[in-house]
Amino acid sequence: VGLTETDAVVVGAGPVGLFQVFQLGLQEIACHVVEALPYAGGQCAELYADKPIYDIPTVKVCTGRELTDRLLEQVEPFRPAFHFGEVVAAIQRQPDGRLLVSTSTGRQLLSRTLLIAAGIGAFLPRKLKVAGAEAAEGKQLLYRLPPLEAMSGKHIVVAGDEDPALQAAIDLVGVAASVTLLHRRDSFRAEESTVARMRQLCGEGSMKLVIGQPTLLRDGVLDVADPEARTHALPLDVLLALLGLSPKLGPIADWGLDLERKQVKVDTESFATSEPGVFAIGDINTYPGKRKLIACGFHECVLAAFGAAAIVFPDRKIQLQYTTTSPRLHELLGVSGN
Amino acid sequence: VGLTETDAVVVGAGPVGLFQVFQLGLQEIACHVVEALPYAGGQCAELYADKPIYDIPTVKVCTGRELTDRLLEQVEPFRPAFHFGEVVAAIQRQPDGRLLVSTSTGRQLLSRTLLIAAGIGAFLPRKLKVAGAEAAEGKQLLYRLPPLEAMSGKHIVVAGDEDPALQAAIDLVGVAASVTLLHRRDSFRAEESTVARMRQLCGEGSMKLVIGQPTLLRDGVLDVADPEARTHALPLDVLLALLGLSPKLGPIADWGLDLERKQVKVDTESFATSEPGVFAIGDINTYPGKRKLIACGFHECVLAAFGAAAIVFPDRKIQLQYTTTSPRLHELLGVSGN
Repeated sequence: VGLTETDAVVVGAGPVGLFQVFQLGLQEIACHVVEALPYAGGQCAELYADKPIYDIPTVKVCTGRELTDRLLEQVEPFRPAFHFGEVVAAIQRQPDGRLLVSTSTGRQLLSRTLLIAAGIGAFLPRKLKVAGAEAAEGKQLLYRLPPLEAMSGKHIVVAGDEDPALQAAIDLVGVAASVTLLHRRDSFRAEESTVARMRQLCGEGSMKLVIGQPTLLRDGVLDVADPEARTHALPLDVLLALLGLSPKLGPIADWGLDLERKQVKVDTESFATSEPGVFAIGDINTYPGKRKLIACGFHECVLAAFGAAAIVFPDRKIQLQYTTTSPRLHELLGVSGN
Repeated sequence: VGLTETDAVVVGAGPVGLFQVFQLGLQEIACHVVEALPYAGGQCAELYADKPIYDIPTVKVCTGRELTDRLLEQVEPFRPAFHFGEVVAAIQRQPDGRLLVSTSTGRQLLSRTLLIAAGIGAFLPRKLKVAGAEAAEGKQLLYRLPPLEAMSGKHIVVAGDEDPALQAAIDLVGVAASVTLLHRRDSFRAEESTVARMRQLCGEGSMKLVIGQPTLLRDGVLDVADPEARTHALPLDVLLALLGLSPKLGPIADWGLDLERKQVKVDTESFATSEPGVFAIGDINTYPGKRKLIACGFHECVLAAFGAAAIVFPDRKIQLQYTTTSPRLHELLGVSGN
């Protein structure tokens, strides 16, 4: 971490953020990518990794994961610097006009341009809504599974009903001093085999299953109301709340951009926002006729890259080159051309 | 041929015209496609069928032919009516607001909407620039190879230096009474094997090669100036001029649309032109920020399809549906959904 100077920062590594990286690359603009998730793909990875998409131009059908993989392959020649698991915390305009982008890990990127491809927001862990939770966050209460060895010998309560929660509870058996899985009802939205493994471990006594609603997190104790509304005190060292991910627009709303119903207003000439050097592409932007479709986001990336190039190379005449014929683009793409 | 009523006519079956068909299909708008070439692909087929393209979103590399094939596969569920080898001859607004589109074969399409994806124009045979040519066109002078049997027993001169010309001359040997290949210099831009075959036939005396520039087409005779500027009279029944294809904007300029440097002006909300119901997408249109790239044309198709749907279904509330989740779109696409 520290201060890094760059020509472009892309916020979001969903399909539109990735194609933005590609289009910036064709303009000879290297970039940093800040992504809240620990991997690329955005909604494609989080909401429809295994679901078919039929309207990507020239692709009859592909899943969200396949789409992501194809785009990662396409941007590969441009070697973007990905910063996964980080969200943009603040943006400050510098006296020389550049933008100082700070992320949640303290990283600082000093950039000429910022391209916001943040979709419906950063996918962040859904918070536990219970008294005492906020004060305990990062201490007694965790929203991500830490390295298993850090949980050694501890009494752990895992809250959640989807695969990540069940899988974490299963993995902690034999490492932690005790493992308790907590959910408000005795029904789980996880893979059948994962549910079966969890029930087997509970049957063997290596895991405990508690059905109930947490009501208060105190020092070393979680109060849980059971379905009959009786309160039980659950002793614990760590409450691991794996309640799924939820998109949060977060600080984008505070960056001083013109917004319209939480969407960033852009022009259709270069998808520039009201702030010089800041562009918004994909589901996060709005303009007359806007449709939240990936094919539209791809186009927005093309024109935003031309807009960014005009800022990064103010003295260069930006001309359209074709990847089929341009020797310079072939060189950038690392291909012989034909 | 005759009068056909339809909701949409797409002009041009290049990549953008094909994706327009797909997007209209998702809006439940069936369409007719008028294309000057005898096949789909437009510039992709004509100018870079075997050349690699690197900037189609999610496709690391593909040739123009592969791109065309992928798009033809994608539009297949919507079964568009393709009319190949036809160009739009005239467009007339009807009293009820619909558009009567007439093509070069006399076909008449009465349509609610017209989507012009005509690229850099219709690829039409390059004309022979020689005195007497215009009067002879369609009689002594042909720009397309007719069925071979129609050439039986005739004295044919084939003008041209690319594969179509050489291949036609080769195919005519043994059918025609005589075959003469004419080109201004003794160098050809055709496949090596085709050139070798032509030279072999000339060596055997079954074909004649004349180097020179045509100067006058008279009844039964073509005057040709040789490199030393001496004129020779070449007797013939048919002059077959296969000089390549050249894009012609043709009558689009006369349709009453707002133009800017021969480009059709559109808005960026639905890529509508100045004429109600007429949209223009791809290389033929212009708007602030326009870049002539396929990825941009694809986006334009999406918004134009929404624009067309508002005209075809004036009482329907047009909502964005996703191909990943919409049962109705799955039905239209002929897929089970998951």
